[in-house]
Amino acid sequence: MNVAGKHYRTIWLNEDNPEIVSVIDQRALPHHFIIEDLHSVDEVVHSIKDMHVRGAGLIGAAAGYGMYLATLEAAGKNSFDDHINEAALLLRSARPTAVNPQLAVNRQLEAIATGKTTDEKIQIAKNTAILIADEDAAHCKRIGMHGVQIIEQIAAAKKGEAVNILTHCNAGWLAFVDHGTATSPIYEAFEKGINVHVWVDETRPRNQGASLTAWELLNQGIPHTVIADNTGGHLMQNGLVDIVITGADRVTRTGDVANKIGTYLKALAAYDNNVPFYVALPSSTFDWSISNGLKEIPIEERSGDEVKYISGLCEDEIKTVLLTPLNSPAINYGFDVTPARLISGLITERGVCKVSEEDILNIFPENK
Amino acid sequence: MNVAGKHYRTIWLNEDNPEIVSVIDQRALPHHFIIEDLHSVDEVVHSIKDMHVRGAGLIGAAAGYGMYLATLEAAGKNSFDDHINEAALLLRSARPTAVNPQLAVNRQLEAIATGKTTDEKIQIAKNTAILIADEDAAHCKRIGMHGVQIIEQIAAAKKGEAVNILTHCNAGWLAFVDHGTATSPIYEAFEKGINVHVWVDETRPRNQGASLTAWELLNQGIPHTVIADNTGGHLMQNGLVDIVITGADRVTRTGDVANKIGTYLKALAAYDNNVPFYVALPSSTFDWSISNGLKEIPIEERSGDEVKYISGLCEDEIKTVLLTPLNSPAINYGFDVTPARLISGLITERGVCKVSEEDILNIFPENK
Repeated sequence: MNVAGKHYRTIWLNEDNPEIVSVIDQRALPHHFIIEDLHSVDEVVHSIKDMHVRGAGLIGAAAGYGMYLATLEAAGKNSFDDHINEAALLLRSARPTAVNPQLAVNRQLEAIATGKTTDEKIQIAKNTAILIADEDAAHCKRIGMHGVQIIEQIAAAKKGEAVNILTHCNAGWLAFVDHGTATSPIYEAFEKGINVHVWVDETRPRNQGASLTAWELLNQGIPHTVIADNTGGHLMQNGLVDIVITGADRVTRTGDVANKIGTYLKALAAYDNNVPFYVALPSSTFDWSISNGLKEIPIEERSGDEVKYISGLCEDEIKTVLLTPLNSPAINYGFDVTPARLISGLITERGVCKVSEEDILNIFPENK
Repeated sequence: MNVAGKHYRTIWLNEDNPEIVSVIDQRALPHHFIIEDLHSVDEVVHSIKDMHVRGAGLIGAAAGYGMYLATLEAAGKNSFDDHINEAALLLRSARPTAVNPQLAVNRQLEAIATGKTTDEKIQIAKNTAILIADEDAAHCKRIGMHGVQIIEQIAAAKKGEAVNILTHCNAGWLAFVDHGTATSPIYEAFEKGINVHVWVDETRPRNQGASLTAWELLNQGIPHTVIADNTGGHLMQNGLVDIVITGADRVTRTGDVANKIGTYLKALAAYDNNVPFYVALPSSTFDWSISNGLKEIPIEERSGDEVKYISGLCEDEIKTVLLTPLNSPAINYGFDVTPARLISGLITERGVCKVSEEDILNIFPENK
């Protein structure tokens, strides 16, 4: 998608040195646009843990590129496989909730194992990393093409009036390699000339909505309004939301959705007000091994300081301010689980489906 | 309640000059404890509008004291009544959602009208202002005594384990003259030696939970944890909330509750997880003239800048930082309406009741 009119992906091999992985350092957004070069597995792990890169698809792609860097590093070591396996462990455990890094790492391990020489393994890892990223972008594009049909139907009923779409957190192109998931149908709709307006949940505590989704939409020229996370219920009660579209960090085979903390509350409000609630995801976000989201998806607990402190722009500098009494403790769960019963449909790269194991497996029969 | 061990109310007549109204300037909390002197109706109106004082009961009491200052000012004017009526208008319209200022102003107008001389009117206004404040404190105390019984029941079932109470915004003593509403049963429980722990919703955009409720609880020595507003649903899904208690800004005769934006979302989550959801309020918060909260309670729209910017402590100074792209618009509704069907009970100064017009009028029969 575009940044000040120029096309970018969120992660790519450095044009001058393809042994370096370049990313947008998302911590500086929306105030500064900074490209960061990652030179090692450790730097990739750090960039995932510290959320320079974040979002299910992007950290999957980053893990893929991380494994490629691991082969470069391993080439100089006594035990190639030990280093690769250690890197795999680090990349898998950098963030526990999303399944994408695990899939990417597993795919790389299988691919690398097919190489006969070290050079061949490196080349395979590089190609696989690029393939994972390209597939992510392609899946997101197809999610947009399927999802836009839902928006078109609403638009037809509203006869030119803006279609109001609420989204939570950032499931935009910044969370993937390109296009995004929840945003992809919105970008498609906008390109088709449909009158859309997006309610952007700021998404405390890390404010990915206010800082990333709003920035994406602004760069793309799409009308939007930032709201406190508390606001969505009131908007829905008053007919001001036509559809909710969120992303997902991990989805069970039965359609329970782990996504950014607070998603469940919006799903409850949508259900209570008959507002359609859709979750957009590439199939890499499914965890086919589990059926009960509440019991089986581990929920990451992050530092309480992310609740107590917040950063923003103050006199052209990024400053961090304390919001609570210094001695009050805070707790910070990163995700919650929205039960399948509250979700109207899933928008995937293979099409839109209802939310039951049967409906999901209908379009992903290879996971039966 | 206590500030660093010393007892305070939130509003009082200055000890040295009873023609001055003293308040705690809540904008500086939790970082600085500042007492502000208000000398005129204009200053009282400004302190309400700009939220130096906030909370249903406190702005009611402030409006009462404001009318007393109005009589002092009117004494020097040609038309005593014109000035009083103008002050009434300003105080009534300073914040549109809460009903308390309107009740306080109306009560003052009626009381002042009974005075025969200007001096008598001033004296009556002063006494009435003090009475309104005293009644507020007494009602809050009784709310605590009724509400603590619900906590005691839960505590008995938990056999010594902490009773986890979630609250939204600040319906603490800072929102009233003393004790608070939602917090009053908690303070009573703590004094009785019950093991309580409070989940404090930070309550964006103005963060009254993080800055005020947490500060209150810390000063009182009550165990608490600050959470992002998005977190409550996840906690309830995982059995980590035993009861929700919130305050209210306006309640219909049928029990629909207007309270800080986001309350509705917590009520939905409580309902979905069979967690009791109580609203604590003094009877001054009822608006007996209306029956449909969603249709009849005006919802204040505040500046979007309260969403885009946030203030906090940075290197010993209060700094304001920008959270969104500068050019992204934001919208800021102050309240939402929780329908009666989602509420387990109302805790009032006359006792606890179920949430229907019949049950409410049972304990407030004078409003039949």
